[in-house]
Amino acid sequence: MNKKLPREKTDEAVVDERFLPQRSQRFKSQIEFILEVDKLKKILRRTTLLDRSRQENSAEHSWHIALIVLVLAEYAEEDNLDLLQVIKLLLAHDLVEIDAGDTYCYDEIGGQDQKAREIKAADRIFSILPSDQAVSFRSLWDEYETRETPESQFANALDRLQPFLHNYFTRGHTWQKHGICKKQVLARMQPVDEGSHLLWDYVSSLIDDAVKKGYLKK
Amino acid sequence: MNKKLPREKTDEAVVDERFLPQRSQRFKSQIEFILEVDKLKKILRRTTLLDRSRQENSAEHSWHIALIVLVLAEYAEEDNLDLLQVIKLLLAHDLVEIDAGDTYCYDEIGGQDQKAREIKAADRIFSILPSDQAVSFRSLWDEYETRETPESQFANALDRLQPFLHNYFTRGHTWQKHGICKKQVLARMQPVDEGSHLLWDYVSSLIDDAVKKGYLKK
Repeated sequence: MNKKLPREKTDEAVVDERFLPQRSQRFKSQIEFILEVDKLKKILRRTTLLDRSRQENSAEHSWHIALIVLVLAEYAEEDNLDLLQVIKLLLAHDLVEIDAGDTYCYDEIGGQDQKAREIKAADRIFSILPSDQAVSFRSLWDEYETRETPESQFANALDRLQPFLHNYFTRGHTWQKHGICKKQVLARMQPVDEGSHLLWDYVSSLIDDAVKKGYLKK
Repeated sequence: MNKKLPREKTDEAVVDERFLPQRSQRFKSQIEFILEVDKLKKILRRTTLLDRSRQENSAEHSWHIALIVLVLAEYAEEDNLDLLQVIKLLLAHDLVEIDAGDTYCYDEIGGQDQKAREIKAADRIFSILPSDQAVSFRSLWDEYETRETPESQFANALDRLQPFLHNYFTRGHTWQKHGICKKQVLARMQPVDEGSHLLWDYVSSLIDDAVKKGYLKK
């Protein structure tokens, strides 16, 4: 959830209709949404940056995995993947965390009401947009969550792969902190196999090595 | 540039060939690039978040503007814009800052050798990738910088618009701190007009209002 930082007294940004081109309600809603989503930069994940200097936030995580699409697309199970759709899914997939917070993937208690919290968040956040765009964004989020399309499966694979790499290459920093074991990571990483067998082979060999090196409990 | 934070002793991540599927050099280079670009999260910009709690970094800025494409695409001058290309340009446009740092747009001295520093950075960072992908990423960066294609013009417009909105909606926080005047902002924001006349109308009316309210010097 949000880490409270010292901050100046501020007030909510208000979009003034007088300055809108054609005083358009549509444009006003779009600017309001753009200002609202800035809050994703305050949502901290458990994963740290590779230099372990601080926790990663959900906005920079979303950028990282959208960029990874451009690098690893060739390993997707589906040959004719719609890359624009994969990237859209990833850019939007964490927006609900603005209200619902980031739920640690191994947090069983937080996980229980996660879906309800996220649906409520989606209802509020996407409805800031003009109705046609609200529907499009909600549909992106639903597609991402249901993992039924090849685009969603590959997007989910990358969303799991990136923090996994951060964990492995920081010698299991977050795994060790929370006493995570191999079985939990194997279960968590299953969507990688759905999206890309080759990436799964890699993850799988790193999991074994992580146990061997003591980064991860048996 | 990088703000130094207290950090644990760490070492550079090394991709071990033994764990690579088919021990592929290509895959190794791709993972190395993915680990390298994590450093963009440490590059701080002058812009603050909307709540003024801290400076924004270039990774989360890149996410924000890539997402804005999905919201404001209808205002691009070109009707049949290739949105995937616009988003690719934005995801990759700041990677050179990993080595070259973020140069403040009103910093005339830093601006003098900015291009040389960025070209050197592009040479190093993109060459981590397999050669075909290195060429693709370099070509994205070149297209972004030259602002000749409609996709690049719209991408540049959004890259200027987002920090502008942050400045206006924090009552000129960064403008005031650095004593910026209207003329400088007008010049800096010209690419918005190239990419979208309607967005330029909006920016232009906010600039006038910012002067009126004392957020920005005449």
